[in-house]
Amino acid sequence: MEIVILGSGNVATHLAFALKKAEYHIKQVYSRDIDHAKHLADGIGAEPIDSLLYITTEADVYVIAVKDEAILEVASELRLRNKILLHTSGSTDMDVLKPFSSSYGVLYPLQTISKEVELDFSKVPLILEFSDQRTKEEILNMAFKLSPIIHEYNSEQRRCLHLAAVIACNFSNYLYAIAHDFLAEKKVDFDLLKPLISETAHKIQSHDPNAVQTGPAVRNDGNIIRKHLDLLKAHPNWQQVYELISEDIVRKYWKEDKQNETK
Amino acid sequence: MEIVILGSGNVATHLAFALKKAEYHIKQVYSRDIDHAKHLADGIGAEPIDSLLYITTEADVYVIAVKDEAILEVASELRLRNKILLHTSGSTDMDVLKPFSSSYGVLYPLQTISKEVELDFSKVPLILEFSDQRTKEEILNMAFKLSPIIHEYNSEQRRCLHLAAVIACNFSNYLYAIAHDFLAEKKVDFDLLKPLISETAHKIQSHDPNAVQTGPAVRNDGNIIRKHLDLLKAHPNWQQVYELISEDIVRKYWKEDKQNETK
Repeated sequence: MEIVILGSGNVATHLAFALKKAEYHIKQVYSRDIDHAKHLADGIGAEPIDSLLYITTEADVYVIAVKDEAILEVASELRLRNKILLHTSGSTDMDVLKPFSSSYGVLYPLQTISKEVELDFSKVPLILEFSDQRTKEEILNMAFKLSPIIHEYNSEQRRCLHLAAVIACNFSNYLYAIAHDFLAEKKVDFDLLKPLISETAHKIQSHDPNAVQTGPAVRNDGNIIRKHLDLLKAHPNWQQVYELISEDIVRKYWKEDKQNETK
Repeated sequence: MEIVILGSGNVATHLAFALKKAEYHIKQVYSRDIDHAKHLADGIGAEPIDSLLYITTEADVYVIAVKDEAILEVASELRLRNKILLHTSGSTDMDVLKPFSSSYGVLYPLQTISKEVELDFSKVPLILEFSDQRTKEEILNMAFKLSPIIHEYNSEQRRCLHLAAVIACNFSNYLYAIAHDFLAEKKVDFDLLKPLISETAHKIQSHDPNAVQTGPAVRNDGNIIRKHLDLLKAHPNWQQVYELISEDIVRKYWKEDKQNETK
């Protein structure tokens, strides 16, 4: 099975190396910027191209790993007939690929991918979707060589998963960044929070997060919440985030506790 | 060195067991509820008491590990003279203890402590504060037997650390809970997010969280943000949290990027 990678960003790069490691042959890497295409293509023994006019018609699978807004544009310049066409996005419907091939699907790697941080692809869940049974059979085989964690969901479910990932992970990282910047101002070592951050993420590996919620808001401790809001008064944005989330936690768990008490 | 524990909650329990493990003798455990006092005292070979009238004057260190709003009340009923009096709170000033002893301080274990989750106290940072050098010498010795991670900060810094811990950890857990509940509604497996949650918490062990921020908001991808807000329309609270945090991320990183470009 021969593969063409369209894109040269974080997902394209990590996926291309994972495919090479699984002993697939990647024929071409496309990027509008020939230097980017070369940089990735050289690492995996592929041909770099910077125009879709040069794309081979001899491969079996064409993977579009570009920004969401560019997927349609790239797909519309391909002439594939019955070759398999995949995109890798969490938030784009599979059906945007329908006009461009008879076999298409999605391979969405659910992970936070930065170029500067190494990634073990075998621990990345792959979320798949297929236009038909033949495509499914061909791609499933390939996907299992990349990761043992494989789930098939429809486009709506995949979009919800992506949204949940943004909330649970990108937003958590933003909270870490607030804590980091706030402590730097106060000359307190951010490293002290690291065991706590690890433990918080570790706990939910085996517990429902609702069952292990701690902190002043879940105890409805207005005294501490007021002190904290006061400490944040130089940062109205952070103060607003603190207030909104605390109110929501009080509403959520306080009500539930009262309901439990009256049961 | 003989110790009295005042309180029987999460912190009192984990701390008492850690002290026992370090071979300290705990003479008494106080709780207003004698069953709670007994439950903890039995586990560590101490005497349970439910009134401060029965408290021994023979111990060396008295640890008040009760809710913040009860610290003053408990302290005011003790007659200690020069015995060491400690509280364990992140958000209460050390000086509330001043009227009640000539030697006092704070031993604040920085960790998310739930009774149902086991805790390795040797990985918990201990944040300390002391009224004077003698108290410091006596308690530092004890603290190092509990954990190698020891920091001395003043009350203001400790309060800031507690606030940062609430933001980075309690609020992250709340985000995990939103993701959990949202995915349950959509019949998508929350377990799929677990590697991503681990990786997000793991990354910042060796990177500044600002350097590893990913997601649609840091790319200022209004298209995806609008789609996500639409998916959340049945949950106005979650929608509001999503919107506020995304706006803040765009403001923070987009501005910084532009500043970098013009440098």
